[in-house]
This record gives sequence, structure tokens and C-alpha cells, in this order.
Amino acid sequence: MKYDDIVDFHGHSCPGTAIGFKIGEIVIEKFGKSKDEEIVAIVENNSCSIDAIQFMTGCTFGKGNLIFKDYGKHVYTFIDRKTGESIRISLDKSVQELMEKFKAKREELPEKILEMNPYEIFTIKDVKVKPPKEATIYNSLRCAECKELVAEHRARIKNGKIVCIPCFKK
Amino acid sequence: MKYDDIVDFHGHSCPGTAIGFKIGEIVIEKFGKSKDEEIVAIVENNSCSIDAIQFMTGCTFGKGNLIFKDYGKHVYTFIDRKTGESIRISLDKSVQELMEKFKAKREELPEKILEMNPYEIFTIKDVKVKPPKEATIYNSLRCAECKELVAEHRARIKNGKIVCIPCFKK
Repeated sequence: MKYDDIVDFHGHSCPGTAIGFKIGEIVIEKFGKSKDEEIVAIVENNSCSIDAIQFMTGCTFGKGNLIFKDYGKHVYTFIDRKTGESIRISLDKSVQELMEKFKAKREELPEKILEMNPYEIFTIKDVKVKPPKEATIYNSLRCAECKELVAEHRARIKNGKIVCIPCFKK
Repeated sequence: MKYDDIVDFHGHSCPGTAIGFKIGEIVIEKFGKSKDEEIVAIVENNSCSIDAIQFMTGCTFGKGNLIFKDYGKHVYTFIDRKTGESIRISLDKSVQELMEKFKAKREELPEKILEMNPYEIFTIKDVKVKPPKEATIYNSLRCAECKELVAEHRARIKNGKIVCIPCFKK
């Protein structure tokens, strides 16, 4: 897995992609890449690091095994559905603190982070976390108002008719 | 852009990745790939198609230019921040309806979808949509309880001290 591929996917290199790359290394070493939903990631921020994590670990937004908790924390938990093994990775130093440590500008930081031993910048703990349910495929219905498709579990009833949420809210 | 690369990223080929691939083709032709946040995607579902869209269009979860509305609809809106040009793409036929149309099994559907002219399976409209604010980088603080990093905009106050949301909720 090359850092350049992540930069291609994300669009640019930044401290976040480098942090995500180091997390990806730890996860791949421990669990391998999640082809389907074998591994679940619970991420507590939606920063650039998540793109590296999606790309490397196979825990992606579209597959349903990337769970977002909007806590603004550099905390990342990974669960292996088969074994129940879980690890919680938290970043020890902020980008600002890393810049001070390395006497580096923001744009110089990715290179410095990539050179680090991942076990140096994160606290990694074994944890017990119940994995969420696997993603479900839902049947599609047609909204009685706009006639567009809507997945059954998101349909609403309005004046006795099945509608989508945007039409429900109108 | 090769379909196989999307399958690699997502982990498998399915009707969703094929639908996302066709949407990606339309978007790239019209707007190009979003290296930074030039293009914004508003997606009304979190199905497999979104991984193809992330990969092809550069509108990704970690970059903040992929906005998720949990409506369960195969509706995808793309906005060009520079020109203000926006298009709304909605899928005309459900996976079930496409299987009937092609007399194909689910696993045979991706190939059929990939062969279609994208303008055959979607309704594409020019729309006027205000783009969301660009993603912001926030300073990090330390939670007074767990001592972990927390982004300023998600910090809470508890007994006069700055804490992260998980500690706030304890």
C-alpha cells in the first residue's frame, strides 16, 4: 500500500492523510483489509485522515462499515466481527504539537509523520466493543408524490400515501 | 478511470458500484475530478454507489465535500463551487426493475449497467443549489477529564472545565 495512492484518492497530501496512513498500517497488520464488512471502523472525526483509512482498511462510507461519531476526536476504533477483537487508536499529539516537536511547517509535517513508528504517536488499547449490525439491502418503493425511488426503511406516510422524506417535509 | 479500480477500493462489484460508476462518468465529463473541494456532492443514500462516487469524483467523506442526507433515495446532486453550475441525477429504475428489464440475476447486473448509456438510466436536471461552506480546520484542545485531544468546535463545558463529548455524556 503506497502513500501516493492515498494522496491520489484524497486529492492532496496533508497531516491528516499521513496520520490516517499510519493508522491504516496498524490496522492492516492486525486485521488485514476488509473486503466486505469483516472489519468495522468507528471514527470520531470526519477529517482528511478518514480518506486514508477508507482507502487502506476497506472500511468505507458506502459499505456501511465506517461508523461516524461526530466528537471531533482523533480516536479510531476497529472491530473484527469474526473474532470480536477490537482496538482503539487515539492520537497523542495534535498537529500543532507535532509541528513544534519537529520544528516543521504544516506542509513539511506529512513526511515527518510518515517516518515515525506508528506506535510512537498513538495510544493503542485492546477494547471490548459490540460490532454494529451488518448493512441491510432494502427494497425500493416509489414516492406517490415525486414518483422517484425511495428505500422502504426511509419512506414516510402522508395523507395515507407512501412518500419520500423530501416530499414528506414539503 | 477503470471500473476494476473502484471494485478494488470498495471490495466487490455489485449493482451499486456499477450505478455509482455511471454517475461518476457523467460528473467527470461535466466537472472533472475534484482535487480539493471544487466540486461538492450531496448524496441522498449511503449505499455502495457512494464508494464509486468518492473514488471517481474526488467528493469524499474525509474531504468534507460529500454531504450525506439520509433519505434512502438514489439522488445525487453535484455543485461546481466556481461556476455555481449544479446537476441533480436520479436513478429511474430500481435494482429489482433493472433485473426484470435485463432478465438478469443480481450478480449479472453490474455488467449490464456498465454497458448502458448513463443518460438511459438516470434523469439529469440542471438545478440551483447553494454550496455548503468549505471544510474548516479547527484547533485542538485537551479534554480535562480523559486528557485526549478534542477539536475546539466539538468541546463542551462540564463543571467549568473543557471536556470532550464522551466525557461530557458520562
